[in-house]
Amino acid sequence: MADNYHKPDQSTVQSLKDIANKLRILSIKATNASNSGHPTSCASIAELMSVLFFHTMRYKVSNPADPSSDRFVLSKGHAAPILYAAWMEAGLFDEAKLMTLRKFKSELEGHPVPRQSFTDVATGSLGQGLSCACGMAYTAKHFDKASYRVFTLLGDGEAAEGAVWEAMHFAGYYKLDNLVAIFDVNRLGQSQPTSLEHDMETYRKRAEAFGWNAVVVDGHDVEQICRAMYEAENTKGRPTCIIAKTFKGRGIIGVEDQLNFHGKALGDKGLAAIAEIEKLISNNKHSLGPATVIDDAPAIDNTEVKLSEPPNYKLGDKLATRQAYGNGLLKIGNANSRVIALDGDMKNSTFSQEFMKAHPDRFIECFIAEQNMVGVAVGCATRGRTIPFVSTFAAFFSRAYDQIRMAAVSDSTINIMGSHVGCSIGEDGASQMGLEDLAMFRALPNCTVFYPSDAVSCERAVELAANTTGMTFIRASRPATPVIYGNEETFTIGKAKIVRQSADDKVLVIGAGVTLAEALKAADELASSGVSVRVMDPFTIKPLDKDAIVEHAKACGGKVVVVEDHYYEGGIGEAVCHAVVNDNIKVAHLAVPRIPESGPPNDLLQAFGISASCIVKAVNGIIA
Amino acid sequence: MADNYHKPDQSTVQSLKDIANKLRILSIKATNASNSGHPTSCASIAELMSVLFFHTMRYKVSNPADPSSDRFVLSKGHAAPILYAAWMEAGLFDEAKLMTLRKFKSELEGHPVPRQSFTDVATGSLGQGLSCACGMAYTAKHFDKASYRVFTLLGDGEAAEGAVWEAMHFAGYYKLDNLVAIFDVNRLGQSQPTSLEHDMETYRKRAEAFGWNAVVVDGHDVEQICRAMYEAENTKGRPTCIIAKTFKGRGIIGVEDQLNFHGKALGDKGLAAIAEIEKLISNNKHSLGPATVIDDAPAIDNTEVKLSEPPNYKLGDKLATRQAYGNGLLKIGNANSRVIALDGDMKNSTFSQEFMKAHPDRFIECFIAEQNMVGVAVGCATRGRTIPFVSTFAAFFSRAYDQIRMAAVSDSTINIMGSHVGCSIGEDGASQMGLEDLAMFRALPNCTVFYPSDAVSCERAVELAANTTGMTFIRASRPATPVIYGNEETFTIGKAKIVRQSADDKVLVIGAGVTLAEALKAADELASSGVSVRVMDPFTIKPLDKDAIVEHAKACGGKVVVVEDHYYEGGIGEAVCHAVVNDNIKVAHLAVPRIPESGPPNDLLQAFGISASCIVKAVNGIIA
Repeated sequence: MADNYHKPDQSTVQSLKDIANKLRILSIKATNASNSGHPTSCASIAELMSVLFFHTMRYKVSNPADPSSDRFVLSKGHAAPILYAAWMEAGLFDEAKLMTLRKFKSELEGHPVPRQSFTDVATGSLGQGLSCACGMAYTAKHFDKASYRVFTLLGDGEAAEGAVWEAMHFAGYYKLDNLVAIFDVNRLGQSQPTSLEHDMETYRKRAEAFGWNAVVVDGHDVEQICRAMYEAENTKGRPTCIIAKTFKGRGIIGVEDQLNFHGKALGDKGLAAIAEIEKLISNNKHSLGPATVIDDAPAIDNTEVKLSEPPNYKLGDKLATRQAYGNGLLKIGNANSRVIALDGDMKNSTFSQEFMKAHPDRFIECFIAEQNMVGVAVGCATRGRTIPFVSTFAAFFSRAYDQIRMAAVSDSTINIMGSHVGCSIGEDGASQMGLEDLAMFRALPNCTVFYPSDAVSCERAVELAANTTGMTFIRASRPATPVIYGNEETFTIGKAKIVRQSADDKVLVIGAGVTLAEALKAADELASSGVSVRVMDPFTIKPLDKDAIVEHAKACGGKVVVVEDHYYEGGIGEAVCHAVVNDNIKVAHLAVPRIPESGPPNDLLQAFGISASCIVKAVNGIIA
Repeated sequence: MADNYHKPDQSTVQSLKDIANKLRILSIKATNASNSGHPTSCASIAELMSVLFFHTMRYKVSNPADPSSDRFVLSKGHAAPILYAAWMEAGLFDEAKLMTLRKFKSELEGHPVPRQSFTDVATGSLGQGLSCACGMAYTAKHFDKASYRVFTLLGDGEAAEGAVWEAMHFAGYYKLDNLVAIFDVNRLGQSQPTSLEHDMETYRKRAEAFGWNAVVVDGHDVEQICRAMYEAENTKGRPTCIIAKTFKGRGIIGVEDQLNFHGKALGDKGLAAIAEIEKLISNNKHSLGPATVIDDAPAIDNTEVKLSEPPNYKLGDKLATRQAYGNGLLKIGNANSRVIALDGDMKNSTFSQEFMKAHPDRFIECFIAEQNMVGVAVGCATRGRTIPFVSTFAAFFSRAYDQIRMAAVSDSTINIMGSHVGCSIGEDGASQMGLEDLAMFRALPNCTVFYPSDAVSCERAVELAANTTGMTFIRASRPATPVIYGNEETFTIGKAKIVRQSADDKVLVIGAGVTLAEALKAADELASSGVSVRVMDPFTIKPLDKDAIVEHAKACGGKVVVVEDHYYEGGIGEAVCHAVVNDNIKVAHLAVPRIPESGPPNDLLQAFGISASCIVKAVNGIIA
């Protein structure tokens, strides 16, 4: 490829240098104005950002979210000021706005967030940007089948994060040659030098061993960067990693390559540096702008996302909700081509394989790398290009909780299905049991939490999730449980169902999944001893149907028993207590009190206090 | 090193082969008896386990937890049956016990758990064992300064987990030449082939690029394995990675190297295989046993873990609890040499640097790799060798939530300090704010959650944590808050403090950290308008002082306002509602309702409804 390479002319080179120094100055100014931020982390990438934004990337300043434009993810989100400066220099806004950096109500927050038109995913928790970029590049290549490319810039500190190597493997394995990762190797972390400092060869070896074309450059030499970008564009069958040797605080006298300046506005030192850097700029005006966009991204599929056919079960038949998930996912995939599925080598347990069999081109096998899987899904979901459903055991989403947390900060519309929840999985033991997943997902703002209790409601949960803005979580069980709803039953987010009632109910029993099945057994047993109970299926745990709980609890003498296959904290029980605390309602709460062991599911439900007989006892206790 | 290598004699080689086949048979038998489990994942490692347990490792069957014995971590925990079979074959228990595999109340659970005398850390969530092994090897080398070595066996599927590469980097960086990692490359995952299948050279390149001595072997050839173990023992300055090419289901006709047998008992196929494998065994008796232990691990330091000097602050002075954490950590480190500290390049923000400066030999810099950091701490804590304190921003412990979850399953005694909680961190924005950490840590059984509100109580929280069995979490704030306790104040886990009261209190206000400071401001303002409130500092959020809350709430007319710098779910508010729901007490709850933005801390406390003025309004509302 080197044969056809034409170097940029000297005027362009000088302009790129000038722009780099302007971006450097703006970063110092903006962080001085906010009296906080990371100017030294910006200074090391000034030349990289200049070449990216004014030589390499194809984008539209008039519409940063344009579907055919190249994408840029600043994985080292603390360098946000220079990202903002680049967009300012490109013409998106003026310097006055840049100077609102980090101020209350300014959209130019301390780290990139998607309320900014030019930001697809929030960054700031390190080592996540590459996974998101992988999702975007995979989407460009396989779903959009479009020309746009994806660039991401990482810090060397964050290269210690394992999630980066999950993503490196993913991109290498899937040969994402429309993806460029730039490592800013500026040698210094927050509190000390990074472990590899300027050992460029080790970075190169690692990138190559993970399947990438690796190019080491002087990150302050715009000509070398331009050439590496050319090589990246012309390397097929492999993603390219540009490993840039840089210096933190580059160009700032007394600060460059020094410790103890991480995350600090530079004050007078910064002002002195600005004066020096200005001398290096030969021309404050330049004619460089983004390269032209190739407008070939398709319109998105706006077909209604609904089950291609209604649920088709028989009342009383037994089916695991995880299996119904597979059925529902397949059906919405039939209806809309934006629906995609991702799994972490669990597709035969989560039943996402049903989708894969029918729609292999829309299934992404992510192997056992849950962090990257969630990040990829977030990337795939940007700009509404796809509607991702991500599945594995609920327990293993704890592996990706930081990515899930950041997905919430990104306001990402992804759907997560966690199967094998609770001690009811049985013999595999505690390591495989999701027992804190409700606490995890409930805590996140804007996350809708479904906990379907039978096959019919599970298919409808999948359909509702696909149409819900923001993150959703579907909690599914391993054991088969009876179908309790007719195929025509309709479900609404935030609306509970009463599945058993009489005029003389003494207690409201709230269960979900396996514990709803146990509650129904308990209701039978109690009925035979003359005690009527009302049984509620909350359907969504967040939002919780507070009104219905209070209304039915009052109709049952103000007495509630909540039973859940989850630890005591953060799940249904605490949500119910929070909902009813001011309504003079008594609550008995049954949940898993300690780390479970291996054993048959029914033995475990009994041993950990959430079986039908435990519910009977709790009901009798609360009415005693 | 090859020069001095003496091959094992042919009788030993045959015995090792025979043992491998016995272990293979026992794994099939045990999983047949339990009708669940992973016999094919055992079969691929039979020769590796035979050599490890009957040729290489130095250990005492009479005391598996012996402090001078070599350690073994089965990272691919689903191969538990063959681990149990190895200990049975070594003489720890009989075959009847092995056949209780996965049965209710048997200690031989589906995955290894530390109720087994021979298991240091629970495994079963993949990709975690190597980090724990790193902690043990680091402890052997730097704290115990003893001869014992550490072995861990990983599956190839779990090699996709980023945490593995964090650990690979850690071991390479710290030159842990007393550590051996064995990759069982059996080509098949649960639902399909692994991404690298039998590409042994790529595994080799990756291991070497991460600083390891890498040896590729035929994992079914005991002579090659013996030689690789010799090489590992004699390689200095680098850990050794033995990359074993194996076949899943090795030796089982119709199953070996086939998909669709993951995690399934083999029934009749297994019985047929046993008959065939038995034919390969030349002698069912053998004289091999563990190599002799070098008894040189020191006795542990039993000095009382207490602050070397009491807190020394002045009432009303302002100090961030994160800074008091640094002071407390330093002081307990002065008193007891088992105290160690780990940080993820945040030591100048978490103030763990105070400990590092005084005790550099007991500080482990883990760089920006939180998953590995927690795993290393778990490893360091095994068998009580050290008392680890692990710190970074609370938000970033979400990155390690699976490791933290598994630490709970391991019943690990580690202490975690998460700083920079809540929107009160200010300008950095949501990505840096710990707002779901209480939900995370409260949900885990046996986790003690401290939330100290001033410098004095924070130092005491550190001291109490060091003396608490099981995991602890200390929640610390970024902003400076006033010292509210005298230096002589005593604190107890599960006991709240009343920090403001009168005979005529109308409402009990519960706050912690910055919101306790806000509550005290609110109390002043309310007092000036003639409303007395009682203010409670819960000190520990788990266990929560339910009795004191109910008692004081009743003394305040049954009215409570809870205010917390955390999302609504899973934190103090829900814990309080759960505690008081049956006592006819009204609760108003103030918490962070949505993803926060950047801004000055006080503006954010106000905007997100948890400032002093918001508390005033809530108090006036609840008594209206």
